[in-house]
Amino acid sequence: MRQVIRDLPGSKIREVANAALGRSDVLPFWFGESDEATPAHIRDAAVKSLSAGETFYSHNLGLAELREALAHYASGLHRPIDASRIAVTSSGVNALMLAMQALVGAGDEVVAVTPVWPNLTAQPAILGARVVRLALRAERGTWRLDLDELRHTVTAHTRVLLINSPNNPTGWTLTRAEQEILLAHCRSTGTWIVADEVYERVYFAGVPGACAPSFLDIAEPDDRLLVVHSFSKSFLMTGWRLGWIVAPPGLGPELAKLIEFNTSCAPVFVQRAGLAALSQADTSVPELVGRLRACRDTLLPRLTALPGITVAEPAGGLYAFFSVEGESDSLALAKRLVAEAGLGLAPGAAFGPEGEGWLRWCFASRDPARLVVGVERLQRFLGL
Amino acid sequence: MRQVIRDLPGSKIREVANAALGRSDVLPFWFGESDEATPAHIRDAAVKSLSAGETFYSHNLGLAELREALAHYASGLHRPIDASRIAVTSSGVNALMLAMQALVGAGDEVVAVTPVWPNLTAQPAILGARVVRLALRAERGTWRLDLDELRHTVTAHTRVLLINSPNNPTGWTLTRAEQEILLAHCRSTGTWIVADEVYERVYFAGVPGACAPSFLDIAEPDDRLLVVHSFSKSFLMTGWRLGWIVAPPGLGPELAKLIEFNTSCAPVFVQRAGLAALSQADTSVPELVGRLRACRDTLLPRLTALPGITVAEPAGGLYAFFSVEGESDSLALAKRLVAEAGLGLAPGAAFGPEGEGWLRWCFASRDPARLVVGVERLQRFLGL
Repeated sequence: MRQVIRDLPGSKIREVANAALGRSDVLPFWFGESDEATPAHIRDAAVKSLSAGETFYSHNLGLAELREALAHYASGLHRPIDASRIAVTSSGVNALMLAMQALVGAGDEVVAVTPVWPNLTAQPAILGARVVRLALRAERGTWRLDLDELRHTVTAHTRVLLINSPNNPTGWTLTRAEQEILLAHCRSTGTWIVADEVYERVYFAGVPGACAPSFLDIAEPDDRLLVVHSFSKSFLMTGWRLGWIVAPPGLGPELAKLIEFNTSCAPVFVQRAGLAALSQADTSVPELVGRLRACRDTLLPRLTALPGITVAEPAGGLYAFFSVEGESDSLALAKRLVAEAGLGLAPGAAFGPEGEGWLRWCFASRDPARLVVGVERLQRFLGL
Repeated sequence: MRQVIRDLPGSKIREVANAALGRSDVLPFWFGESDEATPAHIRDAAVKSLSAGETFYSHNLGLAELREALAHYASGLHRPIDASRIAVTSSGVNALMLAMQALVGAGDEVVAVTPVWPNLTAQPAILGARVVRLALRAERGTWRLDLDELRHTVTAHTRVLLINSPNNPTGWTLTRAEQEILLAHCRSTGTWIVADEVYERVYFAGVPGACAPSFLDIAEPDDRLLVVHSFSKSFLMTGWRLGWIVAPPGLGPELAKLIEFNTSCAPVFVQRAGLAALSQADTSVPELVGRLRACRDTLLPRLTALPGITVAEPAGGLYAFFSVEGESDSLALAKRLVAEAGLGLAPGAAFGPEGEGWLRWCFASRDPARLVVGVERLQRFLGL
């Protein structure tokens, strides 16, 4: 076993969840998913495909009709995107791993905007790359990017800039102006941008149904940009492991090779489910985001009202990221919350040293009342 | 895009298949799968799981009950294996990629026994490793391993020995005596063996139902050995993307991290299908292998009877690997066979330079009569 693999941190979120094994009284908000199962019309499409015997190998890049549907979907949200630029992947995290394999090898420099979910920084490490962490700064619970620091950190030696916006765990979301500055800077340094935009639809600013600012709104097709997406968050499909990449024209054959050598293809019946999800995206996504907004608007005021809690309203994503006065060991705190309060949160340290002292609360819930009970448990735990 | 990725050969099998696009009159035998859909009881288990709403994230290493069932299944075929040594993966090829990520980084030496399906040698190349090809030698169509050459090639500098037995494409299968020599040698050099044993049940020597010799029959649990498996071949589940790894004790947490960072987990409903497959393995696998044996025994004598064809009966696997006198460009020949004879075979060059001049014929067919028609087409093409 390589030392670099042994050195990768294990999931501190799972460590907390494991501490609750066998306890049915714990309210879990630790993972980044809703407690709502995938809608029936999506599951039905998979069932229909299975009944039809679609159980064979498929194209590396995905079914032609799914690539077309994804191009249509993305073109409706952003600048026009041709289906040839779409690669269907075996989850969003798999899409990120493929992007990393395509771009970085041993010794390459990758700059990652942090805190961020740990998979993003682990992948380049597996490939032997050197990961430089560019930390967001928190001010009264609001996280922001120092653009001067970014321009100083991302140089001609930087192969890839990794950005997850809306950000897991902080909810920080790039503005259009910031994106334009980043894109111009990366053009000047020759740096690839790998943008994890899986929360683009889970966005609460602007008009209902609005999409978070995306690099696909401003980039030219041949910019050095890979945008990674997933069906998990916007379509309640976490367990399906289906994602996609938007790449510059001409990279299809290279991505097809990488997909062949990693998982070969996504199951056809899973891709049929993805097609069904897209077919009703116009109504289902705004409805889901409306429910998530209600969740956010249930949790955030209650958290904000608690003395000693520092938190800001997230513009996007599924999470409230907050600190508790006097608490600096987030893993220990999260374990105590499980043991003493029956409340399951993710420790901020799971997202890197920048997150230490913070806790992540996933507010995606079918019933917002769960969140109210959760806050009551936190309140009692804090002796408030 | 990294040069090492650009330099990876694209699939020559797909190149041939693409040459047949839009032609419904071509009989395809190019891919390594049957034309038989997954049995109903397996598909039903996935449908039931989907209906029950099992659409959430799952454990990195797989459902506890699937790991138990796999341990029971493998222990019935080999030495006892504890469930803690099993990791469920998103396909066999994904299992191999995880094994490579666990073991090799930039500059490491990997020795691969060749010809072999191209994914095995592409994966270490993606990770920056140096791949040394150790070629099997063909004698009248029968392929064999030169053990002296192997002992000379695998040294203390060799991090991994990659072996696929029964072998795709040649059907070459390690004997027990050869395995014992290899294991002893790799113990002496400190080399890991990564054994792709996905065709272990598709084995025609010995008593019906016999399993090909496996390193799991002779190795100690803590030997440097990763054995990779797949549901694809023995359970007619190619399109499901479900596999597993048998690892030494104690590596579970490391493999869990790698799974988290590659695909995070296999879908629960796919794992339920795997459980259903294993529950009937005692009857379904011998029945399937019986049908495959009938396919082999339909194809091989007919191929052997053709003048100018060199082929030997494979001990295991799904393939007849044969050469045609006077033909040295297998890709061109395979394309001509599509264009002029409506016969779809895989070019030997797809499996490395050692396979050049050969063709691979996948004989897995629901109806062996397809094979007879195929041979007639080959015969006409050759002017016989």
